[in-house]
Amino acid sequence: MRFGVVGTGAIGGYYGAKLARSGQEVHFLLRSDYAYVKQSGLQIDSCDGSFHLDTPYVYNETKEMPKCDVVIVGLKTVNNHKLSNMLPPLLHENTLVVLIQNGIGVEEDVQKMFPDVQLVAGLAFICSSKTQPGHVEHQCYGNINLANYSCRDSVMYDRLVEVFNAADIKAFSVEYEEARWKKAVWNMPFNGMTVALHTQTDLLLKTPATRQLIREQMMEVITTAQHLGVKNIDESFADKMLNNTDTMVPYSPSMRLDYDFHRRMEIYYLYTRPLQIARESGHPMPKLEMLEAELRFLEENR
Amino acid sequence: MRFGVVGTGAIGGYYGAKLARSGQEVHFLLRSDYAYVKQSGLQIDSCDGSFHLDTPYVYNETKEMPKCDVVIVGLKTVNNHKLSNMLPPLLHENTLVVLIQNGIGVEEDVQKMFPDVQLVAGLAFICSSKTQPGHVEHQCYGNINLANYSCRDSVMYDRLVEVFNAADIKAFSVEYEEARWKKAVWNMPFNGMTVALHTQTDLLLKTPATRQLIREQMMEVITTAQHLGVKNIDESFADKMLNNTDTMVPYSPSMRLDYDFHRRMEIYYLYTRPLQIARESGHPMPKLEMLEAELRFLEENR
Repeated sequence: MRFGVVGTGAIGGYYGAKLARSGQEVHFLLRSDYAYVKQSGLQIDSCDGSFHLDTPYVYNETKEMPKCDVVIVGLKTVNNHKLSNMLPPLLHENTLVVLIQNGIGVEEDVQKMFPDVQLVAGLAFICSSKTQPGHVEHQCYGNINLANYSCRDSVMYDRLVEVFNAADIKAFSVEYEEARWKKAVWNMPFNGMTVALHTQTDLLLKTPATRQLIREQMMEVITTAQHLGVKNIDESFADKMLNNTDTMVPYSPSMRLDYDFHRRMEIYYLYTRPLQIARESGHPMPKLEMLEAELRFLEENR
Repeated sequence: MRFGVVGTGAIGGYYGAKLARSGQEVHFLLRSDYAYVKQSGLQIDSCDGSFHLDTPYVYNETKEMPKCDVVIVGLKTVNNHKLSNMLPPLLHENTLVVLIQNGIGVEEDVQKMFPDVQLVAGLAFICSSKTQPGHVEHQCYGNINLANYSCRDSVMYDRLVEVFNAADIKAFSVEYEEARWKKAVWNMPFNGMTVALHTQTDLLLKTPATRQLIREQMMEVITTAQHLGVKNIDESFADKMLNNTDTMVPYSPSMRLDYDFHRRMEIYYLYTRPLQIARESGHPMPKLEMLEAELRFLEENR
């Protein structure tokens, strides 16, 4: 399988480098880090064992890249409008595009741009960040859930899951709607609340008032998901997420990092879109609506 | 009429000094400013004309004060538990106690401490602050609404309203529940939101997302009040409050000042109590519940 990685950052860089290390042919698109990585390679500092790719295939434009069997998109969703120009040079008739991105509605919108492309959702459970040019620091976790959104070639899809696992990435195949909404149960409360109160996961959960608020926000997502027909999601999932987060190190989710480093926050796919779906379903999420308003205020008035 | 002022700060100091200037006998309780005011008097720097009381009656304990016909309580509600010891020396059989305080439920709780005392609610519409010992700065506004909570002596109550007006304080007699809930329509959104987003009234209203949020929070209060049977309050009151606030100078409500100066915030009577009443009425206020949780987080983790 020939892989392309669009967005060689904390996510695309990590998974792409592991695939390359396992022997897959991986072509990386870079922007600001292009010259550095071309010269010095790609360094992964990982809790599971650090490694270095000495001479990865690197590009600064997709039109110079070959057509790929699998394209991994690791961009922030705030850049997704760029995909309409970036992706076509990479696509052949049967390319799978794996969107390892946050939020609800991402696949729907990319599918509108490319009605015939085969999409796979990638849900990464990982703590990693790009700390300097060509350096990804992988602190912990690393599993990825893959969900078939519009892949017609089930043999190819199953092979993709195997190839990830063979690259020492624990990958599981999961049901699309269930996976996206379950991730939203964690993402929607913690991403925004750590920004709104300028804090981390641990203090939100140690303070009784915000622990209760986080749980209520989780229940808003769960209730909406249930009414949308999502399976295997109920109140116990909120408690499971709270208990799991209690055992994590104090953590700044990606939106908090985006805010701190003055990058645009992924408000649209993490909040606006699921809140709109919730309202249209007749089951709005008022506390998460308030959080969206606070985030928009912070983005507009920093 | 003999007046006592408990809490000679931005509110008690201002109204008490105007009453004293008009010729009323006013006895002031002070704590930290006692020595300064005993020596140097009380200075009111006011947009309506500054003045100075050279030799006010000042005390640092209520047990040294005479019994009063009217006691004005200008304390922050976070200190209301102290009233059970502070008030008795000032009370005769027919004393009126005027609580110029923020929030919902204040009168109910003070009445429980003193079942026979005659209570009047005072709702101040004023921008003032204590800027240094013995100095009150009155920036603008200054009207006070008085509402009979449990005053049996209607002649005395009417005379109180007249005495305020004779002291060049525009005082109106209003209906208690309507007055308290209407004030909550402004107080609940703006006090907390300026703290949560560390901003002022103007920016909250200029940013579309928070302008809409503030209006939704106002509607939560209005809807609850309507279900409690409060009269003369509907959606148009939210728009009136928004439009009035648009014309104000950028403003930091008292809770924002309390937070900035590391004083305890009046979360209980401004949020906890009305939210509890709302839940019990079957019409909860979810966005204001979230705001309370954020304020508790900020108070516990500064």
